[in-house]
Amino acid sequence: MDARSYIEDNRDGFIAALGEWLAIPSVSADPAHHGDVRRSADWLADHLRATGFPTVEVWETAGMPTVFAEWPAADPTAPTVVVYGHHDVQPVVPVQEWDTDPFTPTVRGDQLHGRGASDDKGQVLFHTLGLRANLAVSGAQAPPVTIKLLVEGEEESGSPHFADLLIRHRDRLACDVVVISDTTMWDSDTPSMCVGMRGLTDCQIDVYGPESDLHSGSFGGAVPNPARALAELLAGLHDEQGRVAVQGFYDEVVEISAAERGLLAELPFDEAAWLRTANSPVAAGEAGYSTLERVWVRPTAEVNGMWSGHTGAGSKTIVPRSAHAKLSFRLVPDQDPLRIQERVRAHLLAALPEGLRAEIDFTGPGVRPCASDLESTAVQAAREAMAKAFGTRIRYTREGGSGPEADIADILDAPLVFVAVGLNSDRIHAPNEKVEIPLLLKGAESVAYLWDAYATALRD
Amino acid sequence: MDARSYIEDNRDGFIAALGEWLAIPSVSADPAHHGDVRRSADWLADHLRATGFPTVEVWETAGMPTVFAEWPAADPTAPTVVVYGHHDVQPVVPVQEWDTDPFTPTVRGDQLHGRGASDDKGQVLFHTLGLRANLAVSGAQAPPVTIKLLVEGEEESGSPHFADLLIRHRDRLACDVVVISDTTMWDSDTPSMCVGMRGLTDCQIDVYGPESDLHSGSFGGAVPNPARALAELLAGLHDEQGRVAVQGFYDEVVEISAAERGLLAELPFDEAAWLRTANSPVAAGEAGYSTLERVWVRPTAEVNGMWSGHTGAGSKTIVPRSAHAKLSFRLVPDQDPLRIQERVRAHLLAALPEGLRAEIDFTGPGVRPCASDLESTAVQAAREAMAKAFGTRIRYTREGGSGPEADIADILDAPLVFVAVGLNSDRIHAPNEKVEIPLLLKGAESVAYLWDAYATALRD
Ligand SMILES: [Zn+2]
Ligand SMILES: [Zn+2]
Repeated sequence: MDARSYIEDNRDGFIAALGEWLAIPSVSADPAHHGDVRRSADWLADHLRATGFPTVEVWETAGMPTVFAEWPAADPTAPTVVVYGHHDVQPVVPVQEWDTDPFTPTVRGDQLHGRGASDDKGQVLFHTLGLRANLAVSGAQAPPVTIKLLVEGEEESGSPHFADLLIRHRDRLACDVVVISDTTMWDSDTPSMCVGMRGLTDCQIDVYGPESDLHSGSFGGAVPNPARALAELLAGLHDEQGRVAVQGFYDEVVEISAAERGLLAELPFDEAAWLRTANSPVAAGEAGYSTLERVWVRPTAEVNGMWSGHTGAGSKTIVPRSAHAKLSFRLVPDQDPLRIQERVRAHLLAALPEGLRAEIDFTGPGVRPCASDLESTAVQAAREAMAKAFGTRIRYTREGGSGPEADIADILDAPLVFVAVGLNSDRIHAPNEKVEIPLLLKGAESVAYLWDAYATALRD
Repeated sequence: MDARSYIEDNRDGFIAALGEWLAIPSVSADPAHHGDVRRSADWLADHLRATGFPTVEVWETAGMPTVFAEWPAADPTAPTVVVYGHHDVQPVVPVQEWDTDPFTPTVRGDQLHGRGASDDKGQVLFHTLGLRANLAVSGAQAPPVTIKLLVEGEEESGSPHFADLLIRHRDRLACDVVVISDTTMWDSDTPSMCVGMRGLTDCQIDVYGPESDLHSGSFGGAVPNPARALAELLAGLHDEQGRVAVQGFYDEVVEISAAERGLLAELPFDEAAWLRTANSPVAAGEAGYSTLERVWVRPTAEVNGMWSGHTGAGSKTIVPRSAHAKLSFRLVPDQDPLRIQERVRAHLLAALPEGLRAEIDFTGPGVRPCASDLESTAVQAAREAMAKAFGTRIRYTREGGSGPEADIADILDAPLVFVAVGLNSDRIHAPNEKVEIPLLLKGAESVAYLWDAYATALRD
């Protein structure tokens, strides 16, 4: 029995289990779905018990629960690995743009469609298959390293309570390395390992003017219009070079080195194909940087949503009483989310016209950017395990997205290694999310090899 | 019997009838209420028959119906008056901000609350009371002038079919003067007559980017963001002086003369009180003009509404696929709405970033601005009739709002006279619209006198 055969033999059961889990709409950003996030945690806990984990616990937070499971190595001196993922998912609006119901998982050829298939339930679940494969090959009753699975429930809401949880359970989470399975690879044919992620902070801005909507005939042109003012504030977030115009925004940004630039430029980047994936006819952004640099090593300000006044059928000639927007900022090492929050707030309030009032509410403390050390044993062993599973060289990439990885590394005082098989074409955070089933199986195979490798490589 | 006593004696029946009419939610901008707009037309037709009009007809258009009623003078050589108003009303969102249900008319002291109480059902209905008062005083079976009532059903939607209707029925609408009852007075203590109105054109702009929402982690900073682009387009509608930045926007604007400026400056304008009515702490607008000039004799561009991306609970870190706004432009003599549409369209499309697509849809041909001739007999007689009813001098004002008045004057080739009793504090187009009942009764009294005055003053 080898790991690959075991995984192929157990493919159908794995997909069936994943389908069950994907049917639970665990949208952490929507209070109406908080019961579902709890159901999702309970489903995973049951599944991990059935997988064989001797210890499975649902850890409560001030928000949504994290699932913790531990399977100790037989050898008490073996290294310990924390595996991180998340069981909450993004909202699904606009739901009418889904070809199949987002919570009715559907296999289409080699793809599994459904919210969370790639981000992140599919990637969490390949670890149970990989671990069973490792045990099937060794014939042992316990894994070669101690495995601690840590699957949080608020990643898509900015992980507001996760740092607290890590601090509270720091002793039980002691480990030699943290393996993250929540990122993407270059493409199906070019497997890769992520070595850094952007940070994130987001806010809602509410601009208030007159106490009620005003008739634009009686008042238009002579009082401040909150919608116009908000548009001007949003337009003022960038300068003509596409740089974020917030004072001090770039103060702590580590400029990309010539060496890093070269490494990124070597990747087989096909901008036309990337644009097809983005469904966008053109690339655009900060002047002086390539597309890959813009999404991986440069910070951004984005308008995620906005609303004001009359948005229904027909026209309504009013000066609206208020205007609202949701903004997010991607951050890179060494930007600090809390400092950026202060600077964005100061920038927006300074630009607000007289006679209007603004409230700016940031969602929690934000997410810090992170990076792994390319030269470390932990990264090198993981790269070799993936190379064996995929049968080819593993490239290095970065990730434009954000997770609580910087907190995990800092609080647990362990290096970060990214082992993950999502694709940019998976449409995560958008309608019609899917995952490539063969890549999930390669993920399982990679960790089946990796636990054996770490059992020796990570010994002091 | 004098007109004032007759009106006081019939006050309760008048308010009861108006209440019945206000209970019909005739929102022309909302297709869901088009059945109600038709019910509103039928209610008015029945009421005019009960008032005594020998001819009452509901005129169909390509949109919502107009009510026409005619009561010929006994003397076939008597002058003819067309009275214009409208029976459709503004939408009522946000409905939770109404203290009483918008379509459950409620008397509170001297005020009647409900959507349409001031704009414009109350002002249409005072004509039936005024005409009955005129007949009660004269004892005659017919009015001293031929009265043609013309009450349209799409004024709040920009009167898209009204010009066609006027052209179609030009012969039956032949008249010596058009009396408009759809404007406001200076205030309760300073009755006034409007002598001009702004025009209007409005549009929706839809900006489209990627075919689906994109994950801002994967794509943010490297593709055009439609919400940001729309914010920049909206911000670009004005220059730093508060002037509309659309090229050619002011080309046909008749600058206010020194004489007009003096007339406006003589009005007892209390900016602090005006701001209290507007619920706005400050005045703002085009540099170099007073507040009254900004709302009466200067054109504007206003954002009436906008929406894009995620507007629900929590955060969603996306690049939204589209962004939308509703804009309106108030116009002054001699701006032409169709020319302004062309210039606004060219301005917005020229400023659109590469890689985005925009659709700009204007609502119909727009509304032309208009003004009346202060020196005419028609204006002077109306001003004297109002002075008799109100017991004080009648001031001249203008109106910042818009109606189909320019079309009526042009197509019927008759001068415009404004006899109306709304107030800026009536909260028309906003939650908690109300009307001052004593002013509606003064309106009735004014026209009771005016028809007698016109019977002699308008003879050739
Ligand atoms: Zn994720
Ligand atoms: Zn009106």
